[in-house]
Amino acid sequence: MAQKIVVIGGVALGPKAACRCLRLAPDTELTLIDENVFISYGGCGLPYYVSGEIQAIDALRSTNYQVVRDPDFFKRMKGFTVRNQTRALSIDRQAKTVHIKDVVTGQEEDLPYDKLVLATGARPSMPPIEGRDLKNVFNLTHLEDAAAIRKKCESGQVTEAVVIGGGFIGLETAVALADMWGINTTVVEMTPYLMSAVLPESLGRMAEHDLIKHNVNICTNEKTVKIEGENGAVKAVVTDKRTIKAQLVIVAAGFIPNSQLAKDAGLELGPRGAIIVDEHMRTTDPDIYAGGDCVSIKNIITGKYGYLPLGSLSNRQGRVIGTNLAGGDDTFPGFVGSWCVKLFDLSIAATGLTIDQARREGYDAISVLVEQLDRAHFYPEKDMMALEIVVEKGTKRVLGMQGASMNAHGLKARIDAVAGVLQYSKPTVLEISNLEVSYAPPFASAMDVVNVAANVADNVLAGRFQAVTPTEFVKLWQERDQNNVFFIDARPAKAGREMASKLPGWHAIPLEELQDRLDEIPSDRKIAIICNTGLRSYDSLLIMAKHGIKDVVNSVGGMQAIMYMGLDRELK
Amino acid sequence: MAQKIVVIGGVALGPKAACRCLRLAPDTELTLIDENVFISYGGCGLPYYVSGEIQAIDALRSTNYQVVRDPDFFKRMKGFTVRNQTRALSIDRQAKTVHIKDVVTGQEEDLPYDKLVLATGARPSMPPIEGRDLKNVFNLTHLEDAAAIRKKCESGQVTEAVVIGGGFIGLETAVALADMWGINTTVVEMTPYLMSAVLPESLGRMAEHDLIKHNVNICTNEKTVKIEGENGAVKAVVTDKRTIKAQLVIVAAGFIPNSQLAKDAGLELGPRGAIIVDEHMRTTDPDIYAGGDCVSIKNIITGKYGYLPLGSLSNRQGRVIGTNLAGGDDTFPGFVGSWCVKLFDLSIAATGLTIDQARREGYDAISVLVEQLDRAHFYPEKDMMALEIVVEKGTKRVLGMQGASMNAHGLKARIDAVAGVLQYSKPTVLEISNLEVSYAPPFASAMDVVNVAANVADNVLAGRFQAVTPTEFVKLWQERDQNNVFFIDARPAKAGREMASKLPGWHAIPLEELQDRLDEIPSDRKIAIICNTGLRSYDSLLIMAKHGIKDVVNSVGGMQAIMYMGLDRELK
Repeated sequence: MAQKIVVIGGVALGPKAACRCLRLAPDTELTLIDENVFISYGGCGLPYYVSGEIQAIDALRSTNYQVVRDPDFFKRMKGFTVRNQTRALSIDRQAKTVHIKDVVTGQEEDLPYDKLVLATGARPSMPPIEGRDLKNVFNLTHLEDAAAIRKKCESGQVTEAVVIGGGFIGLETAVALADMWGINTTVVEMTPYLMSAVLPESLGRMAEHDLIKHNVNICTNEKTVKIEGENGAVKAVVTDKRTIKAQLVIVAAGFIPNSQLAKDAGLELGPRGAIIVDEHMRTTDPDIYAGGDCVSIKNIITGKYGYLPLGSLSNRQGRVIGTNLAGGDDTFPGFVGSWCVKLFDLSIAATGLTIDQARREGYDAISVLVEQLDRAHFYPEKDMMALEIVVEKGTKRVLGMQGASMNAHGLKARIDAVAGVLQYSKPTVLEISNLEVSYAPPFASAMDVVNVAANVADNVLAGRFQAVTPTEFVKLWQERDQNNVFFIDARPAKAGREMASKLPGWHAIPLEELQDRLDEIPSDRKIAIICNTGLRSYDSLLIMAKHGIKDVVNSVGGMQAIMYMGLDRELK
Repeated sequence: MAQKIVVIGGVALGPKAACRCLRLAPDTELTLIDENVFISYGGCGLPYYVSGEIQAIDALRSTNYQVVRDPDFFKRMKGFTVRNQTRALSIDRQAKTVHIKDVVTGQEEDLPYDKLVLATGARPSMPPIEGRDLKNVFNLTHLEDAAAIRKKCESGQVTEAVVIGGGFIGLETAVALADMWGINTTVVEMTPYLMSAVLPESLGRMAEHDLIKHNVNICTNEKTVKIEGENGAVKAVVTDKRTIKAQLVIVAAGFIPNSQLAKDAGLELGPRGAIIVDEHMRTTDPDIYAGGDCVSIKNIITGKYGYLPLGSLSNRQGRVIGTNLAGGDDTFPGFVGSWCVKLFDLSIAATGLTIDQARREGYDAISVLVEQLDRAHFYPEKDMMALEIVVEKGTKRVLGMQGASMNAHGLKARIDAVAGVLQYSKPTVLEISNLEVSYAPPFASAMDVVNVAANVADNVLAGRFQAVTPTEFVKLWQERDQNNVFFIDARPAKAGREMASKLPGWHAIPLEELQDRLDEIPSDRKIAIICNTGLRSYDSLLIMAKHGIKDVVNSVGGMQAIMYMGLDRELK
């Protein structure tokens, strides 16, 4: 007799698992239920529909070959039944049935299953603030949200918008509103910098600077207190610091896994209440699989269960579940946490742990930010690329890497190369130093920026020099009257002298002149040295060390990192 | 007493090793000798100087921070002595001396060493053909070559040029001559397709098509017989098929490691006569290190010694040698063989083994070519990306991947992600299927093309369908009168019908119509199915299989691959 499978949830993982299962076992009787009208859409594309870059919303629920994925499509082409507008109310694991309700007719019934798949996804986290139910306050998780937001933008009634939450969905939305609709957009973020959950401060500030340059207002360290309305529609967002006028508010404050059904059925939950699954994507009931934004899987770096709701993981997990439903034995190894986002000029990408995450997980770790050219320095077209590498002291194990560059795909290349290695081995700094990424001058440097990041971390770990972050360097400068630090700018004469002429106490000693000017450098004061990217300053500090000047801190990332972070205005 | 180190060879690895050593052990007495005038230059940049993209040749021998790397630079900034125009004649391992000769004065002497580094590089392989010493016949390995070639181009006396050798340096040079100087350029290649040593036929043909589209003449399967001259200068290249007029000839027929010194000193040589080194980059004499284009290191995939002269490997190995010279204990893991090249519109990149290499190494392997969008299909900007994955049957171990795309950096991202995994683990198809590359719609698809390549290989290995290559598909079509194959075009109606109207026997059965038109498909003939990229055809063959039509071959890569290979003109 044909195996009966019920899949609950129809956005990403559900249809993927169902299609894969039917491909391998065409006789399966599979029913997918979803409480919404629309199913199987590219949720990650919603900001691009809001912006207008994607013209028709159906593009988000079409196959690569331009067929709309509606229930009829799945029936005809994939061989399974979709019941949309149908809610799962409970699971009876003994009887192996799902109790469902048609949300239109109100009719209820029991669906029997041999295997069940929970693909219930996640819902937006809504902070419990007054006014969140006002008109024109939206999340951005469903097609309907995106349609409503775009309609509102098209109406011409929005001149000011507020995005609550500076995570990557919030920022993608802010870019869409400001760039494509010219709306005066403000991002309100509680923590000290943007994307602070997933980025180090250096790169969070680079993201911030990119948005500010493009006229997005950024309010960090700022808590939304309430949303104010007029005639039932939003008119302003009130924070603990100000009131911001807005005719449109997007709340992008993270996600909560939809795990109530699983919880009620007695399945084990993990971090953030997500459903625990094993490597086969099975819950604690071997007849029930789960995957996507509702599950907790292992973080490969830490070995602990974690939560990472990403569409790419859902798709890959869906395939594994589909194979296993059809009698296969595929596994999903867990996650390292790879992601990327395009802002205005800048793209950001990351894999593994940030320095803060690493420390929270108990690693005694350091991080180093490098800022280098992404291609051979003699090649005419090139961009700067910032990479921050996170390394455990002692073992020298690499725990993560985050980066920012205008070269979006080039950045992805570096992050994904490290992602693959993190996923399937436990690389040390030496292994990333020797990482065999492909090279030709139009693509990379012979000693590529990803290798350089590891080399610099290796030098710092070996105590070959003391690194300071751009923020720390700027703070040293600002507090120079108290700390008595001597500042050296090792850049070519022109750049350094221009700066020195404006800033008393800023000493332009180009690398080329250093050996002849060592007597200008005091031996009884701490030295802070900077250049454009950290290369000249490194060579300078080696020369100084040879001459006994050893209390030197090097601003790794150099003026480039400082400028990308928008900190150059603080050097005054 | 300070350790004495001699480094022979000053292009890439030599200076790198020397600088690293001096950084770690500043008191070392290090002498680097090189027989040429110019040292420490970016040899990989030579084609871009020839093209004029790099204006001044000094850019190729400058640091990232624009200081020319001449002997004085190394003395002042790095603390070691460079003796250029000095040749090493022999090594006395007992006495630990190198016998050297000043090529200007003719003076000879012995240099004592505690540790010696052989960084002698490789020389261009010159086929023993008549006329190879004529004027205006060049290689492209030294700065002097590049300067002479560019001067010749600038003189306006070159209207026709021939490049002998269709490897990647030959092709970079052909692009430089044809694109930037408008020279009528012909590439002569002995083997059946371009870059055949490092690419599968599919991608070699794509490279060829890109060059042909940009008016470069490609003569494959063609052997150069002699070079003809007039008044001592080249006037034509004679092949076994024709005579090609040329005022400029570049011979790019591969490299031969410079290992005579090592051989004479009794050090062990490996494949192609390159110097065998261990993981610490030590030769069979523990006091002599070697690295770069003169050494043989382990191929990580096969575990056997191999030879891969690439500037990126030299740089990374140089750092390892430098560390070890200074008393460290770094290792270099071997190579997987990652490289990339930019042609006109198309870029090509690869890592690991091609299907031909794999079979020559004794693997029972298959390869599958996929052709997919590089970004979410709903995202407005996107390119096609071709990836060929090579997998061992049985173990399902992934042995390599090669690709082509107009999205140069995006291609690098996929290849480098696989490169990292190949370098540090032995991934199976399932592991590449689950490879956690970063995703957002402007960068990738949720199920990325690199994952799809593995998925398709998995399906083929599991016997879920029979794949044919674009070339095989075209051959089936051309021989349709003999083989009685029934051809189905599963693309949307418009594309398929347009083709069918021109080609009797070409059946346009769009995926959407298939279920209603199954009776049109004969059950007693082999079916060959094609669509745009292989997705619709896959869905089609699943539907056919359900209805008992199982003798079907699927043209993976679809019409896109056929067009990128320039094979569409053969479908007539």
